[in-house]
Amino acid sequence: MAKIIDGKQVAAEVRLNLKNEVQEFIAAGNRAPQLTAILIGNDPASQTYVNNKMKAAQEIGINSCTKHLPSSISEDELLKIIDELNENQSVDAILVQLPVPDHINERKICNAVKYEKDVDGFNEINVGRLALDMETIVPCTPLGVRQLLKYYNIETKGKNAVVVGRSKNVSLPIAMMLHTDKSHHDRSMDATVTICHRYTPRDELKRYCQLADIIVTATGIPGIIQADMVKPGACVIDIGITRIPIEGTDKTKLVGDVDFEAVKDIAGFITPVPGGVGPMTVAMLMKTTVKIAKNLAFKKL
Amino acid sequence: MAKIIDGKQVAAEVRLNLKNEVQEFIAAGNRAPQLTAILIGNDPASQTYVNNKMKAAQEIGINSCTKHLPSSISEDELLKIIDELNENQSVDAILVQLPVPDHINERKICNAVKYEKDVDGFNEINVGRLALDMETIVPCTPLGVRQLLKYYNIETKGKNAVVVGRSKNVSLPIAMMLHTDKSHHDRSMDATVTICHRYTPRDELKRYCQLADIIVTATGIPGIIQADMVKPGACVIDIGITRIPIEGTDKTKLVGDVDFEAVKDIAGFITPVPGGVGPMTVAMLMKTTVKIAKNLAFKKL
Repeated sequence: MAKIIDGKQVAAEVRLNLKNEVQEFIAAGNRAPQLTAILIGNDPASQTYVNNKMKAAQEIGINSCTKHLPSSISEDELLKIIDELNENQSVDAILVQLPVPDHINERKICNAVKYEKDVDGFNEINVGRLALDMETIVPCTPLGVRQLLKYYNIETKGKNAVVVGRSKNVSLPIAMMLHTDKSHHDRSMDATVTICHRYTPRDELKRYCQLADIIVTATGIPGIIQADMVKPGACVIDIGITRIPIEGTDKTKLVGDVDFEAVKDIAGFITPVPGGVGPMTVAMLMKTTVKIAKNLAFKKL
Repeated sequence: MAKIIDGKQVAAEVRLNLKNEVQEFIAAGNRAPQLTAILIGNDPASQTYVNNKMKAAQEIGINSCTKHLPSSISEDELLKIIDELNENQSVDAILVQLPVPDHINERKICNAVKYEKDVDGFNEINVGRLALDMETIVPCTPLGVRQLLKYYNIETKGKNAVVVGRSKNVSLPIAMMLHTDKSHHDRSMDATVTICHRYTPRDELKRYCQLADIIVTATGIPGIIQADMVKPGACVIDIGITRIPIEGTDKTKLVGDVDFEAVKDIAGFITPVPGGVGPMTVAMLMKTTVKIAKNLAFKKL
């Protein structure tokens, strides 16, 4: 029976530590860290995400602000707003809630956020620096996965890891951190890493997973990771999150990529969905906001 | 018996095509593409590398120039020279021959070369763009590997690939191109990719290699890839290059990472060392120089 990785508890600890850190930072004569979110249009999911982030910020003592823009906004107008925030000295961290409307180039927007303020780590410079093992801003979900592995003392050096999925914001940064040289950067983990994706045949996926000490899955395909794919004692991190109907009712529930009930009897560690990686994403966003505020404050000195 | 991948021949074809392309470019009223190399100090290997590149450039009709600087040059002086080249409109492509002397920060120098002129693709912006499947400049050796796979019609989509090594200039870009989504970028290859390195236990390395349809090795450890590690029919690309003594003589020879004589009886395709990937690196440097010259010329229009 696997140990259940309690993302809620770890996230609560992270947030409590940040609250103290922010108090000390302010007591030392600095203004409170500041986070600005840009929310475009009226997608209910995006609104919920942004609200949760803003609520977490307030609890920690981070000043937060949401710029809610109409979905009709032009790319140029949006770029102008981002540029003002880039230059505004009372703004530390900037996030643009994705997705943006179809008429706006998402990559252009991600690159427009000044890399020093880019709390999501999506700017091409931050991505390049991550790939080069340089000091940078790492996206929040990958950072949360790393923190969970660290918290539960999951050994990574020389171990076999599989990352299922190849998204640029989640899977790729995780694969990057897992395989790189720990002597070059604190966040690196020295694992042997296999990246699987939609063109990996299912029997090959099974084979690679069976070799893995660590499986990190982020596909949004419920049940893609089954019990017979998991090595006894392996650590299974589930980033997938899908809403499915509960049979025989008109209700829905959230499930991950992993067949949790069966896999938990085989794995050594497993994250539940919800309550695993999810809560860590917001906590890491807060951690990065505080880091950015400190960087900018020290730069000004 | 494997088909021997003839890097010399493919490189010669690439260079011939480039020669024609350059002639047409000039005939259309443009000045010849220009490549400037910065060579610091008197390392004989570095001098040979730079000379080979300059010679290849001349044969193709690329204007070339080597700035030979003393190893005593300061970082600031070097940065100033790079900046002048960045601004100089008669310079297209810039390369700094690595390694630089110990008192100079290599990463700072790589980032100082303007990303549009960064023929080696080492600037952090180009690395980030590669990771994000954006239009960018890809380092020459990885580009050469991709070209060889393409030339010999080696299927990559859904195939198992192993990259042995995790260097930022060679292995990482190869792993990146091999695993990414071909529908996003022409250079992407949709393979399942495993990245192995110094902390991959040798028996695990063997296991991953045995599963691989494509093995790309870049370790500089002669004989690390043995015949019993290779699946019959696999494609084996050897980027390692090590000079070793010839037994019983005072002569030396170049060898790769692969036990060529034994592996060639099992593999489907194999690159020799020398004469495999090596010649492709210089050819791809020329290809990128021409690409940069065209980009800059069209930008000026």
